[in-house]
Amino acid sequence: MTATRTETDSLGSIEIPAGRYWGPQTERARALFRIGEGRLDPAVIRATGLQKWAAAEANRRLGEIPDSLATPIKAAAEEIIAGLRDADFPLPVWQTGSGTQTNMNANEVIANRANELLGQPLGSRRPVHPNDHVNRGQSSNDSFPTVMHIAAVGALRARLLPGLAALHAALAAKAAAFAGIVKLGRTHLMDAVPVTLGGEFATWARQVENGIARVTDALPRLLLLPQGGTAAGTGLNRHPEFDVVFCAILAERTGEAFAPNPDKSEGMAAHDAFVELHGALNTVAVSLTKIANDIRLLGSGPRGGIGELIVPADGLSSSIMPGKTNPTQAEALTMVCARVMGNQTTVTIAGAQGHLELNVFKPVIIQSVLESAHLLGDAAASFAAHMVAKLEPNRARIAEQVAKSLMLVTALNPHIGYDKAVAIAKLALAEDLTLKEAAARLGHVAPEDFDRWVDPAAMLRPGGAGEGGG
Amino acid sequence: MTATRTETDSLGSIEIPAGRYWGPQTERARALFRIGEGRLDPAVIRATGLQKWAAAEANRRLGEIPDSLATPIKAAAEEIIAGLRDADFPLPVWQTGSGTQTNMNANEVIANRANELLGQPLGSRRPVHPNDHVNRGQSSNDSFPTVMHIAAVGALRARLLPGLAALHAALAAKAAAFAGIVKLGRTHLMDAVPVTLGGEFATWARQVENGIARVTDALPRLLLLPQGGTAAGTGLNRHPEFDVVFCAILAERTGEAFAPNPDKSEGMAAHDAFVELHGALNTVAVSLTKIANDIRLLGSGPRGGIGELIVPADGLSSSIMPGKTNPTQAEALTMVCARVMGNQTTVTIAGAQGHLELNVFKPVIIQSVLESAHLLGDAAASFAAHMVAKLEPNRARIAEQVAKSLMLVTALNPHIGYDKAVAIAKLALAEDLTLKEAAARLGHVAPEDFDRWVDPAAMLRPGGAGEGGG
Amino acid sequence: MTATRTETDSLGSIEIPAGRYWGPQTERARALFRIGEGRLDPAVIRATGLQKWAAAEANRRLGEIPDSLATPIKAAAEEIIAGLRDADFPLPVWQTGSGTQTNMNANEVIANRANELLGQPLGSRRPVHPNDHVNRGQSSNDSFPTVMHIAAVGALRARLLPGLAALHAALAAKAAAFAGIVKLGRTHLMDAVPVTLGGEFATWARQVENGIARVTDALPRLLLLPQGGTAAGTGLNRHPEFDVVFCAILAERTGEAFAPNPDKSEGMAAHDAFVELHGALNTVAVSLTKIANDIRLLGSGPRGGIGELIVPADGLSSSIMPGKTNPTQAEALTMVCARVMGNQTTVTIAGAQGHLELNVFKPVIIQSVLESAHLLGDAAASFAAHMVAKLEPNRARIAEQVAKSLMLVTALNPHIGYDKAVAIAKLALAEDLTLKEAAARLGHVAPEDFDRWVDPAAMLRPGGAGEGGG
Amino acid sequence: MTATRTETDSLGSIEIPAGRYWGPQTERARALFRIGEGRLDPAVIRATGLQKWAAAEANRRLGEIPDSLATPIKAAAEEIIAGLRDADFPLPVWQTGSGTQTNMNANEVIANRANELLGQPLGSRRPVHPNDHVNRGQSSNDSFPTVMHIAAVGALRARLLPGLAALHAALAAKAAAFAGIVKLGRTHLMDAVPVTLGGEFATWARQVENGIARVTDALPRLLLLPQGGTAAGTGLNRHPEFDVVFCAILAERTGEAFAPNPDKSEGMAAHDAFVELHGALNTVAVSLTKIANDIRLLGSGPRGGIGELIVPADGLSSSIMPGKTNPTQAEALTMVCARVMGNQTTVTIAGAQGHLELNVFKPVIIQSVLESAHLLGDAAASFAAHMVAKLEPNRARIAEQVAKSLMLVTALNPHIGYDKAVAIAKLALAEDLTLKEAAARLGHVAPEDFDRWVDPAAMLRPGGAGEGGG
Repeated sequence: MTATRTETDSLGSIEIPAGRYWGPQTERARALFRIGEGRLDPAVIRATGLQKWAAAEANRRLGEIPDSLATPIKAAAEEIIAGLRDADFPLPVWQTGSGTQTNMNANEVIANRANELLGQPLGSRRPVHPNDHVNRGQSSNDSFPTVMHIAAVGALRARLLPGLAALHAALAAKAAAFAGIVKLGRTHLMDAVPVTLGGEFATWARQVENGIARVTDALPRLLLLPQGGTAAGTGLNRHPEFDVVFCAILAERTGEAFAPNPDKSEGMAAHDAFVELHGALNTVAVSLTKIANDIRLLGSGPRGGIGELIVPADGLSSSIMPGKTNPTQAEALTMVCARVMGNQTTVTIAGAQGHLELNVFKPVIIQSVLESAHLLGDAAASFAAHMVAKLEPNRARIAEQVAKSLMLVTALNPHIGYDKAVAIAKLALAEDLTLKEAAARLGHVAPEDFDRWVDPAAMLRPGGAGEGGG
Repeated sequence: MTATRTETDSLGSIEIPAGRYWGPQTERARALFRIGEGRLDPAVIRATGLQKWAAAEANRRLGEIPDSLATPIKAAAEEIIAGLRDADFPLPVWQTGSGTQTNMNANEVIANRANELLGQPLGSRRPVHPNDHVNRGQSSNDSFPTVMHIAAVGALRARLLPGLAALHAALAAKAAAFAGIVKLGRTHLMDAVPVTLGGEFATWARQVENGIARVTDALPRLLLLPQGGTAAGTGLNRHPEFDVVFCAILAERTGEAFAPNPDKSEGMAAHDAFVELHGALNTVAVSLTKIANDIRLLGSGPRGGIGELIVPADGLSSSIMPGKTNPTQAEALTMVCARVMGNQTTVTIAGAQGHLELNVFKPVIIQSVLESAHLLGDAAASFAAHMVAKLEPNRARIAEQVAKSLMLVTALNPHIGYDKAVAIAKLALAEDLTLKEAAARLGHVAPEDFDRWVDPAAMLRPGGAGEGGG
Repeated sequence: MTATRTETDSLGSIEIPAGRYWGPQTERARALFRIGEGRLDPAVIRATGLQKWAAAEANRRLGEIPDSLATPIKAAAEEIIAGLRDADFPLPVWQTGSGTQTNMNANEVIANRANELLGQPLGSRRPVHPNDHVNRGQSSNDSFPTVMHIAAVGALRARLLPGLAALHAALAAKAAAFAGIVKLGRTHLMDAVPVTLGGEFATWARQVENGIARVTDALPRLLLLPQGGTAAGTGLNRHPEFDVVFCAILAERTGEAFAPNPDKSEGMAAHDAFVELHGALNTVAVSLTKIANDIRLLGSGPRGGIGELIVPADGLSSSIMPGKTNPTQAEALTMVCARVMGNQTTVTIAGAQGHLELNVFKPVIIQSVLESAHLLGDAAASFAAHMVAKLEPNRARIAEQVAKSLMLVTALNPHIGYDKAVAIAKLALAEDLTLKEAAARLGHVAPEDFDRWVDPAAMLRPGGAGEGGG
Repeated sequence: MTATRTETDSLGSIEIPAGRYWGPQTERARALFRIGEGRLDPAVIRATGLQKWAAAEANRRLGEIPDSLATPIKAAAEEIIAGLRDADFPLPVWQTGSGTQTNMNANEVIANRANELLGQPLGSRRPVHPNDHVNRGQSSNDSFPTVMHIAAVGALRARLLPGLAALHAALAAKAAAFAGIVKLGRTHLMDAVPVTLGGEFATWARQVENGIARVTDALPRLLLLPQGGTAAGTGLNRHPEFDVVFCAILAERTGEAFAPNPDKSEGMAAHDAFVELHGALNTVAVSLTKIANDIRLLGSGPRGGIGELIVPADGLSSSIMPGKTNPTQAEALTMVCARVMGNQTTVTIAGAQGHLELNVFKPVIIQSVLESAHLLGDAAASFAAHMVAKLEPNRARIAEQVAKSLMLVTALNPHIGYDKAVAIAKLALAEDLTLKEAAARLGHVAPEDFDRWVDPAAMLRPGGAGEGGG
C-alpha cells in the first residue's frame, strides 16, 4: 500500500500518494482517465513549466502578484523546465480536450512545490494558491494552447531541424563525392539514359533542403500565442498588458519571436497553425520516404538486385546467412514516415472538429505534432549517421550496368537514323548482345565508330546526342 | 438561349430547360450548388430508379396508390434503371448532405415522365404528383440511404467482384505455369534463400482470394435497408408493411437478400456499413499495391534491374528509346489504389460526423464507395488482361541470379560447419567469385561435393539444409 | 557510470549493462536506433514470450531440443509472459522493419535467463544458445509476425471487446430506462418530428453491437499464423510438423483457434489481416465518434444549448465558473477516435509497402493496431462508466422542446390540409407563437381540436399522421 | 458503327474515329485503360495547350523549328487553351503514371490540327510531326509535370483564391455588422462567459485570411518548373537555353513568375511541391469545416437548438414540414472538405512512392490537387453567397440566452466572494431560477445591486470582473 496524504479543495477531500506534488484535480483525473498506458509527451510538461514561469514573471512585473510569491513559483517552474518533475505529471493524452487537467496539474505541482520551498507542507494551498497565483490571469483555454505552441517550436529547434540539417549535410557530401560517377538512370523502374550518382544524391539533398524551408515557413503563424485570451478569448480577468509582457518575457528567454495572436480566439477555438505545420512535416515524411526507398533500391542485392550502392554492415544481420546486410535504417525511417502520415490524418480530424469558442482536441494535436517532429528529427539523424555517411558505390557494377544498357542506342540516332537504331536495339535485346555487338553484326556501325559515338558521359547535358523519357 | 418552360410548386415558379424532365426543386438546386464540374455517379441515379420502382410496386400491392398511377411510375422508373435518363439528373455530389435534392430530382423526373406517358404536359404535376405518389410513404431520409445500399451492392456484383475474380484467375494460372521455376528469394529487398516464381504468384493469388472474401463478408450488413424509416427513423406516414414488402420486391428483382434494417435509424443516422465496406476495399487496395509493386520490381530492367519477369510490350512506349517497355498497367493500378486509400479517409471522416437523427454526408460517402469499387474492379481486370496474363519469365536471368547468390552457402553448414561457410561467403563477396570458386580456393569443398551439396531446389521445403531470414 | 559485463558473439564483443538479460544484438540495436523515447508495446513483448514458450514445447515434443534445455527455456519465457522482463526489452518500434531485433532480444533474454537458471553466468551462451535452441526452427521472418497475431488477438479479447461490451450494456440499459421519453428529433441539426430518447440510445447500442460483430468477423483470418515459414516462407530448417504442433500447443494454452496459414508467405510478405482488422477498428472509431458527439450535443447547455441530457459532474470543472460541467469523457473518447483514424492511414501505408518475400513495416503495424485496440477498449469502458451510466434526462426541457416544435404541425395535414398548416407554421415562427396559439389566431383549429389532433406520441410509428424528413 | 480513318506510326496501324484529332498512341491507350468513367481534369488539358504553345514559341525563338511549323502548332495549341479540344482528350487519370499518354495525346492532336490548318489530311504526320516538332526538346518526363504546375497555379488563381476572398469578405462584413451583439460564449459546447457575435465572425474571417496566406505561401516552390529536364533530368536533346526561354515566355503570357527549377530532377522524380500545396489546401478544409460546423450549430433549431442565427431559406426544404429550413450550404461545404481531407491522403501516398528518376503517380496527384482547389473555391464562394451573406441574428433568442446564463455569476466574485457565488449558481441550476432570483432568495445580492454588478458587456474585455475557462 502506498502512503498517502489528504488534500482538500472546493470539491472535497481526496487521498494523494505521499511523495507526489500533484493535487486533488490531478488525482481525480487519474481515476477518471484510465485510458492507455502512455503519458502526455514530456516536452509538453516542460513547456508548461516555461509558460508558468513566464506568466509568474509577467504578473510580478505588472504588480499582479508580489515578489514573495513570484519567486518560489518561478523556482518551482524551473524544476519542471529542467525535467525534474516529469514524474509528477501522471496524466495521459486522453483527458479533457482542453488540456485543463494538465494545466491544473502544473498549477498544483507548482503551488505545492513553492509552498514547500516556503516551509509549508504539501496540500497547504497557501501562501501560494494554484488558481489565484500560479494560474493568475490565465485560463486553461489560453494557457494550454500557448504551451502547445511553445512545445512545438522547441521540438522543431531542438530535434527536427538539426536532424534534417544532419541529413542534408550527409547527402550533400555524397553528392560531391560521387559527382563524377556515371550510372544508369531509371524511369518507371526501367533502364533509361545515363545520369550521375552524385546527381541523385544532390536531388535528395535538395528535397531535404526544401523540407527545412517548408518547416521554417510554418513558424510565423506558430509564434503567435493565444495567451491572454483567458475565457473564450475575451481576456476577462487578466491585466490589460499581460499578453504583451508575457510574450516579451518568453521571447527574451527562448530567443524565439513569440508575439500575441492578434485574434486570440483564433488560437483557442481552432488550431490551424498546427494543421499547417503538420502539413509541412507530412511533406518531409514524403520526401524522406522517397529517399529511403531509392537508397534501398540502389542498395538491393548485392547480386540479385540493382547493387549500385553498398549498404553498410551494421552488426545486426543474421548470423545464419553470411553476407546478408539489410538496410535497417531505411526501414526504421520509412516506418517513422508511415507514422507521420497517419498523424497527418489525426491532426486533420482533430483540428477540424472544434466547436465555437474552443477546440477540444488539444492534447491529441500536440502529442501527434511532437511525435512527428521528434521521430522525423531522430530518424533523419540516425539515417544520416548510420546509413548515408557510410554508403559506398559499387563502381564495377555501376560501370557494367551503364555499359550493358540498351538505352545508349539513342546516341546513334543522329549518325545512322532512327530505324537502324531500332533494329540494333531489338537484336541486342532478343539475343542478349551488347549494342556494339548487335551494331556490328547488322553492319550498321563499325566498332571504332561505335566507341566514338556512344559516350554515356556526353548524354548527361542539354544538347547531347539522344533523347529519353516517357 | 435555351428554350424553357415554367414550372410551379408550393415555393413559386421557375424556368426549366424545355427538354428536361426535372422540376422546380432540381432547378433551384442547380443554381444553388455550382460546385465542381462532376455529377453524382450514374450508378446512384440508376439505383434511384430501382428504389422508386420497388416503392411504387410496394405501394400498389398495399393499396396506397392505384394501378393507374403505379404503372406509369414504374415505366418511368424503368427508363432510369436502363440509363436512359442520366442526363436528367444534373446535380453534383455537393448538395444537401441528405441527398434530398437527388431524391426530389427522381421524384420530379418520374412524375413528369409518367404524366407525359399519360398524355399530360411536363410540369402538370397531375395525375402523378412527385411527392404524393412517387415519394409515397417515403422520405429522402430513408430513400436516399436505401439507394446508397442498392448502388453499392450493385457495384460490388457488377464490377468489383468480377474484376477481382479475373485477377485471381490470371494470377493462379501463372502460379501453376511457373511452379517449377526456382528463383532467388528476397527479404528486405536483399538476396535471400531460393523460392519459386510460381509460389510468388500463388501468394498474390491468395491475397486476392482473401480480398474477395473480405468484400463478401461486408455484404450482410450492407443488405439491411433503412427504407421505411421515413422521417427520423419513425416510419411516420408509411404503410405498416411497406418496409417488408419493399425489400421482398427488391430482393426478388435483384436476387440480393435485401431485408429491413432492424433499427432503421441506424441506417439513416449513421453509415457504419459503408465505413466497414470501405475498410474491405481499402484492404484490397493494399493487397493490389503490393502485387503491382512486386511485379514491377521483378520486371525492372531489362538489364539494369531485377529482370526476372518480362513486362509485356503494349505499344505505348517512347518511339525514341527502342526497347523501353514500361509497366504502365502497374502504374494505373497503383494510382487507383492511392485514390482508394484517400477515399478511406474521406469515408471515415464523413461517416463520423453525423448528428443525431441524420448523417448529412450521404452523397460523398456513396460517391467515394462507388468510385473505389468501380476503379478497383476495372483496374484489377485491366491489370489481369494486359499485364498478368502476358507476363513471361526470363529463365536465363532467373537461373543466373540463383546461381550467383551467396545465400546458397547456407546449404554447406551441415557439411563443413558455420565458420568455414562464413569464410567462403566473405571471400566470394569480396573478390566477386562464385561460392564454388571461393570454396575451392579455400580448399573447404571440392567442386564435385559442392555440386552435390548445394541444390537450390532442395532448399524450398521444411527439413532442408539451411536456414534463412532476418 | 553503469557497471557492465562483456558479451561476445560472432560479430564481436560489446559492453552490456550488468543487470540486464539482453545480449549483443540487442545492445548494438540500442545504439543504432535512438529514435523517439517510446518502446515497443509491452503486449508485443509478452506475446514474444508466448511464441517462444510454444516453440520450445513444440521442438521438445518433436525431439528437436532435449527436455533439459526446453525446461529452462520455457521457464524463462513464462517470466516474459508474466510481464517480469519488460525492462529487458529496451528497443523502440523504429528498428528493422522485420522486427528482427525484438526477436533476437527475446532469444537473448531467454538464453541468458535459462542459462542463469542452470547455474551459468550471463553471456555464457551455453548450454542454451539464443539461435540454436531458443530460435530453433524459426526465423525472425515467421516468428515476429506470429507474435503480431498473438498480441492482436490478445488485445481484442482482453481490452477491446470487454470495453465495447461494457459500453453496449450501458447504452442498452439507458435505452430501456428512457424508452418512454418522447423528445424532439433532429435532422440536419434542425427540429424534426418527435422520437424517443430511449430510441436514440438503442440506435447507439446497435452501432456498438455491430462494432463488436465487425471486430469478431476479422478473427478468422487473424488466427492463421505464419509460424513455420522460416526464411522467405519456405519452411527451410524446421521440423516438417513444427507448424501444426506449434499452433496446437498455442491454441490449447490460449483457447484461441490458432492454425497454420495455408500460405505462410502470405502472412510474412503482407499483413492484409491487420489492415482488415484495423478497418474494423476504424469503423468502431467512427461509431463511437458519432455517439460521443450526439451525447455532448444533447448535453450542451445547460441553458444555452440543447440541454436534454444532464452531463454528470465529475469533479474536474473550473472552480471559477460554478455549475460548469464539461463532457470530459466525450472529449477523451473522440480524441482516441481521431488517433485510431490516423492509425488507419498508418497501417494502410505500412501494409501496402511490403516488397517481395517480406513486409518490413511490421513493428509499426502491430504498434498501431495494439494502440487502437487498447485505446478504444479503455476509452469505451471509461465512457460507459463515467458518462453513459450517469446520464440523466432533463425531462422538463425535453417536454418543453417537443411542445414548442413547429414540426408538430405535420399532424394537422389530414385534418385541415397542407396549405392551412403552412400558414399556421409560418405565423408561429414569425411571431414566436405556439402552434396552438397560431392555429387559434388564424381560426383554423379550435384549441380543443388541436389538443386532440396533435399528439407527439402518436407520431412515433408507421401509419402516424404526419411525415418528416429532408 | 463509327466511321474511322487509319493512322500509322512506328508501332503499326490502327483505326481511329474519323472526326477525332488524336492519333495512334492515344487510341491504343484508350483500349488499354478502360478504368472508371471519368477523364483527366480539363484544366490539365488546357494547361497542356499552354505548355505546348510556350514550347513551340521557345523553339521558334531558338531556331529549333521554323516559323512555318511553329505558327500552326501555336494556333492548334490556342484551341486547346480555349477549351475547344477537350473532347479530343479521351484518356482517364488511370494511365501511365508519367502522364505520357496525355502528353502524346497533346502532341498528336496538335500535329493533326496543325497539318489540317496547313491543308493536310489527319494522320499525315507531316509537315508537322508529333514527336519531332510538337514535342521538340521535350520529354513526357518534364512536360507533364510542367503541365501539372501550370494547371495548379491556374486553379489557385482562377477558382480557389477568389472563392476564399469572397468568403472572407462575407464573413468580415458580418463581423462588422454584428460587432455589438453580446451573446453567450460556449466552451466544450457548454455555456461560458459572454462574447460578441461579431467577434465570432471575425475569428472565422481570420481563419480564412490565414488560409489565403497559407496557399499563397506555397506558390514560390510551385512556380519552379522542371521543363528542360527531358529524359531523367539530364536535359538531353534540348537547346541549352530552352528552359530559361520557355519559362520567360510562359511568365510573360500568364503573369506568373514561372522559373526553371534549379534541380530539374527534383521536379520530375518527386512532387513535394504538390504535397506541400495540398497541405495548405487541407488546412483550408480544416478551417472551413470548423466555420461551417459552427454556423450550423448557431443556426440549429429554430426552437430546439441554439437558434442564435437564422439559416436562410433557400427554397429547397421539404414541402411536408413547413418552416424546416436546412443548412444545405454547410452540408455541401463540409462534404467538400471531407473529400479534400481524403485527397490529402491520396496525394501523400502518391507523392511518397516515386522511384529513382521518376515519380509515376503524376496524373492522380494533379487530378487530386485540382479537385481540391476547384471544390474548395467553388464551395467557399457558394457558402459565402447563399449562406453567410444571408445570415441574420435572432436577437431575442441571443439576449434571452445571455440573460439566462449561469456563467454571469462570475461577475459577482469580487463583490460577495466565491463561496456565495457558488451557492447562487447551484440554487439557480437546481430550481431553474434566474441568477437574480436565486441571489435574492438567498439574500446575498439585492436586485438593484445585481443589475449594477452583472453586466455581460463588461465581461468582454481584459480587466473585467470575472474569469472563465477550463
